[in-house]
Amino acid sequence: MKIYRVNLDELKVTEELVKDTYSMLGGRGLTSQMILDEVDPACDALGRHNKLVIAPGLLSGTSAPSSGRVSVGAKSPLTGGIKESNSGGTVSQRLGKLGIKAIVIEGIPKGDDFYKLVVNKDEVKLEVCNDFKGKGNYETMESLLEEYGKHCSFMTIGPAGEFKLQAASIAISDPEFRPTRHCGRGGLGAVMGSKKLKAIIVNDEGTTPIPIHDKDKFRKAAKDFAKMLMDHPVSGGGLTKYGTAVLINILNEAGGLPTKNFESGRFDKAGMISGETIAEKIEERGGKTTHACHPGCVMQCSQIYNDKDGNYLTSGFEYETIWAFGANSMISDIDVIAMADRMCDDTGIDTIEIGNTIAVAMEGGLIEFGDTKGVLNLIAEVFKGSPVGRIIGNGAGFTGKAFGVRRVPVVKNQAMPAYDPRAVKGQGVTYATTPMGADHTAGYAVTANILGVGGTIDPLKKDGQLELSRNLQIATAAIDATGFCLFIAFAVIDNPEALPKIVDMLNAMFNLELTGDDVTNLGISILKAELEFNEKAGFTKLDDRLPEYFTEEEFAPHNVTFDFTGEELDSVLKFD
Amino acid sequence: MKIYRVNLDELKVTEELVKDTYSMLGGRGLTSQMILDEVDPACDALGRHNKLVIAPGLLSGTSAPSSGRVSVGAKSPLTGGIKESNSGGTVSQRLGKLGIKAIVIEGIPKGDDFYKLVVNKDEVKLEVCNDFKGKGNYETMESLLEEYGKHCSFMTIGPAGEFKLQAASIAISDPEFRPTRHCGRGGLGAVMGSKKLKAIIVNDEGTTPIPIHDKDKFRKAAKDFAKMLMDHPVSGGGLTKYGTAVLINILNEAGGLPTKNFESGRFDKAGMISGETIAEKIEERGGKTTHACHPGCVMQCSQIYNDKDGNYLTSGFEYETIWAFGANSMISDIDVIAMADRMCDDTGIDTIEIGNTIAVAMEGGLIEFGDTKGVLNLIAEVFKGSPVGRIIGNGAGFTGKAFGVRRVPVVKNQAMPAYDPRAVKGQGVTYATTPMGADHTAGYAVTANILGVGGTIDPLKKDGQLELSRNLQIATAAIDATGFCLFIAFAVIDNPEALPKIVDMLNAMFNLELTGDDVTNLGISILKAELEFNEKAGFTKLDDRLPEYFTEEEFAPHNVTFDFTGEELDSVLKFD
Repeated sequence: MKIYRVNLDELKVTEELVKDTYSMLGGRGLTSQMILDEVDPACDALGRHNKLVIAPGLLSGTSAPSSGRVSVGAKSPLTGGIKESNSGGTVSQRLGKLGIKAIVIEGIPKGDDFYKLVVNKDEVKLEVCNDFKGKGNYETMESLLEEYGKHCSFMTIGPAGEFKLQAASIAISDPEFRPTRHCGRGGLGAVMGSKKLKAIIVNDEGTTPIPIHDKDKFRKAAKDFAKMLMDHPVSGGGLTKYGTAVLINILNEAGGLPTKNFESGRFDKAGMISGETIAEKIEERGGKTTHACHPGCVMQCSQIYNDKDGNYLTSGFEYETIWAFGANSMISDIDVIAMADRMCDDTGIDTIEIGNTIAVAMEGGLIEFGDTKGVLNLIAEVFKGSPVGRIIGNGAGFTGKAFGVRRVPVVKNQAMPAYDPRAVKGQGVTYATTPMGADHTAGYAVTANILGVGGTIDPLKKDGQLELSRNLQIATAAIDATGFCLFIAFAVIDNPEALPKIVDMLNAMFNLELTGDDVTNLGISILKAELEFNEKAGFTKLDDRLPEYFTEEEFAPHNVTFDFTGEELDSVLKFD
Repeated sequence: MKIYRVNLDELKVTEELVKDTYSMLGGRGLTSQMILDEVDPACDALGRHNKLVIAPGLLSGTSAPSSGRVSVGAKSPLTGGIKESNSGGTVSQRLGKLGIKAIVIEGIPKGDDFYKLVVNKDEVKLEVCNDFKGKGNYETMESLLEEYGKHCSFMTIGPAGEFKLQAASIAISDPEFRPTRHCGRGGLGAVMGSKKLKAIIVNDEGTTPIPIHDKDKFRKAAKDFAKMLMDHPVSGGGLTKYGTAVLINILNEAGGLPTKNFESGRFDKAGMISGETIAEKIEERGGKTTHACHPGCVMQCSQIYNDKDGNYLTSGFEYETIWAFGANSMISDIDVIAMADRMCDDTGIDTIEIGNTIAVAMEGGLIEFGDTKGVLNLIAEVFKGSPVGRIIGNGAGFTGKAFGVRRVPVVKNQAMPAYDPRAVKGQGVTYATTPMGADHTAGYAVTANILGVGGTIDPLKKDGQLELSRNLQIATAAIDATGFCLFIAFAVIDNPEALPKIVDMLNAMFNLELTGDDVTNLGISILKAELEFNEKAGFTKLDDRLPEYFTEEEFAPHNVTFDFTGEELDSVLKFD
C-alpha cells in the first residue's frame, strides 16, 4: 500500500510509504486523520494550504459486498470545518486494487492551466488539461472514456468546481462511466477546483487481486454478510425495489417530509414523486429499477431513469434529491426533478444543497414555489456562472443572505437533508452535533425514529434521541472507514450476527484479532479527530445548534419544535 | 433623561427611566453595554431577537465643540459580532436636546408594511410608512423635510437596508438635510431594514437648553478645547483645508495606499484624486472646501462637491471613499468617484465596504480594474436589488466567495479601510484585534505611524505597535462614548492640556469629579463588554487574525508582510 502526494505548486507527484499509525485507517478514518495532521485548521479552505485527501475504504477492492465507497476529505469551504464526503461509484474499488491507500492533493498551480491526474499501476502523473475547461461532467467523462477506456474510473469537477462555488461536488463515475455519483456535500469540488484539477483518471488495468491473509475465512464472512444484507427487509427489500425514494411516502406519512422550505411536514402531491410512482415510470419507459453503483453491491438501490421517449436521463436518483427539488420546492413533476438531478450531476453541484437553496430563493421571491422552468433555469445559470448562478451555487446560507431570507435550514452553513429535525428529532440531534454540518448520513436516526430498525423511538419526543444519535455517529464513522455503504447498517443494527462478519473480514484480510469494541473505538477516534480539527478551526458550541426558527416555529402537522437544550446537545459527542 | 423602547412586534413605544448603571454611559458606551445586556449573542442578527440601540454621546446637544456623533449599536449581520457604528450629522445633537439617552428598536412587525418613527419633545410614535418603499435616501429625506420641516434630523435606510444586505448603512441627515452622513459599517442598515423601519424623524422644536450643573466651568473648558482643536496642525489645518482626502498624497507617499485590491502601496495617479486636487475642483465649481457636518464643529472637514456644471453632487466625501473607488479600484476620475459616493449615500451602503467589494469583483473578473462605467453600474444594481447587486451589496467577503477570489481584505468579514496593514502595521494590529472587524477608527495608529502625532513609530516595523493600538483602542472607546468626533484625538494626543478639558466638561455638566484615569477605565470597560459579547457569539482567537495572504504576500514598494504572531495579537486587548 502506498500514498501518492500530488503537489500542484511544483507540479510534482511523489510516492510515500504508509506511516504505521495510518496502516489500519482507511476511508474517512484516514482522510480525517490526515487532514488533522497536515492541514492548518485556520487556513483558507480554497487557498494553497488546504489539501484534498482521497482514500478508498479498508475493504474497497475486495469481494466484500457493497464495499465500494470512497472518502474525500479536506477543510470544507462551505462549513469552514473538516469534511469527509463519501460516494459510491467505481473508483474506490480501483484505488483499492491499485494498492493506493490515499492520494493527497496539495498546493495551487501558478497560471491559468487546468490539470488532470492519471493514475495507473505503473505511475501517477499530472498533465495539463484545458480541453474540458467549462465542460460539464457528462461531456468530460464521455471524452475521458474515449481516451482512457473501460478499465478506468473518473473523478471530475464540473463548472461549479471550476468557479470554486461552495456547493460544488466531485463526480465519480458509475459502472456506465456516467457522473451520477458524487462526493456532494461540503463543497469539495471547489477545493479540487481551487487546485485547478479538473479530472482524476484511475486505471486498474493489469492489477492482481488484493492480498488477503486468510482467504477462506474472508470469503465465508463476505458470503454470510451478503446474505444478511439481502435478508433484511430494508437493504434487501424496499431499497432494492424502489431505491431510496421509497422514503417519500414513508416520511410524508410520518409528517416529517419538509415541504415548502421546511414550512410543514406533508406534501399533498407526495404520491406523484414517490418511489412507487418512479418505479412504475421506469418500467413503462424501459429503464432499470434496480442498478448497482459499483460491481459487487448486493443492495443495488440505484436505477436507470429514462425520459418520456425512453432515452437515458439520469441515475442515482435519490430520495434526498427528489425531496429537495420536489416537496421542498413544491414541484410534483417527477421528470422535472429528474432533469434537475441530471443538470446538477453535470454542473457538479450537490443536489441536497441546491434543492434547499432553490427553496430558500423561492421564499426570497426570486422565483415562485413550484416554478418548474424557474428551477431548471437557475441550475443552468450555475453552469454558466452568471451572478445569480454564483449565488445559487454557493448554497442555502449564501442565498439566504442574498435574498434577505431568515428561514434558512443550515447547520454549520450546510443545508439540511430530507428529514425535518422537529418531526424526526433524532435526526435533528445529528444535524446539530455532527462535525460535518447538517448531514443525515452522519448518524441516521431515521432507523429507530421512522423505520423501526434497531427498535422504535418516538420521532416527536426527545427521549432516547441523544444516545441514539451518539451511537449511530460512532458506528457510522467506523463504517465510513471500511468502504462499506452506510446501508449495511440496517442489517448490522437488527442482526447481532452481522457486525462479527465485518470484524471477520477485517481480521481475515489484515491478519488481526479485532473485536466489536475495536470498531466502536475506531469510530470514536475518528470523531475525536474531527472535533479537534473543528475546535482548532474556531468552532464553538454555538456551531452545534440549529437555526433559531426551528426552536420557535411549530411544524405541522404535529406542531412540534426542536426543543433540546444546549447542554443536551453538547453531551452527545462528549468523549472521555 | 429617558430611554424609549420601540417594539415592532407589538407596534408599541414605551418610555423608561434610565437605570443607575447606565447614567454615566452614552454613545458607544451605552449601545455596547445595552447590546451585551439585552441581546442574545447567538441570535440571528436579522431576526426578531436582535435590537438596534441609538444613543447620542454624553455631551451631544451641548456647546462642546465637535460633539455631535451618534452611536448605533446592534449585533452585526456582517461580522456576527457586536457593532457600534457612529456618525456625524445633526441627529445626535437633537437627541441630546430632547433628553433622550437611547432609543431601542426591537422585534419585527408582521406583514409587509414599513414604518417610520416620529420623535419629538412630546411623544415618540410609530406610523405605517410605505411611501418611501424602494426609494433612495436623497428622495426620502427630501420628502421628509417637506413634511416635517427644518427642526428635524432624519435617520433613513435606502433600498439596501430594505433588502437586508450586509453592507447596508443608516443615513443621517447633514445640516442641509441630505443623507451624506452614515453609520456605515457592519450592516446596521440591514438590521433597521429587518425591523421594517424606513425612517426616524427627530424633531427638537421647543426644547430648552440641556441642563448643565456648572455652566461657567463648562463654557470655559469648551472654549479652551475648541482653541486647542483649531491650533493643532491636523484638526485645525489639513483637515479643515482639504478634508480627510488630504491623506491620499500622504499615504501614497508612505507606500501604504492600497492599490488594485491591496496589491501594492502606491497609485501612480494618486495626484488626480488627492485632497489638493479636489479642493481646486471644488473652488472652480463654486462648492465649499470647508463644511461642518453638524453645527458647532470647529474642524469642518466636510465639503460641498459640485459637478462640472456647478450643481451639487455630494458632500462628506471622505478619504476612505475616495481611496476605495479610486486607488483600490484603479480609477482616477474624481467625478466618477464622487458620483459613486453619492450613489452609495442614496442606496444606503457603506462606501468602504462597497469600494473594497468592487475591487474584489474586479479581481474576480466581473469588470475590469479602472472600469468607471462598470463601477457606477454595479452600484446601480445594488439599488435595483438584481442578483449581481445583491452580491455586491453583501460586501467583500461575500463577493469573494461568489467570484472565487482568494485575496479578500476582510477581518471578521468586514472590509479593510484605506491603510495597508503591512505598510502601516499599527493599523493592521487594530484591524485584527478590535471587536468591530477591520476598522480604522477603532484605534487610528496612522497618528504615530504616518502623521507624527503622538510621537513617531516606524510604520513598517513591529516595535511599539501593539501598545500603540491598545492605547488608541482604549482612548477611542471612551471618546466614542462622549459624542466627540474622533478627530479631536489629534489634539488630545499631542497636547497634554486637552484631555483635562474634556474631563472638565463632563464634570461641569454632570457634577462629577472624574479624572483622566476614569476616562481610560471607561474605555477599557467598553472594550470588555464588546469582547464578552463577541466571545458569547462564538468568536475565537482565530477571528483576530488577518487573511493569510497578508502574512505571505510581500507588499510593494516596501516589500513587507504582516508579521505579528498570534500571541502578540492576543496580547493587545488582554485585560486584568
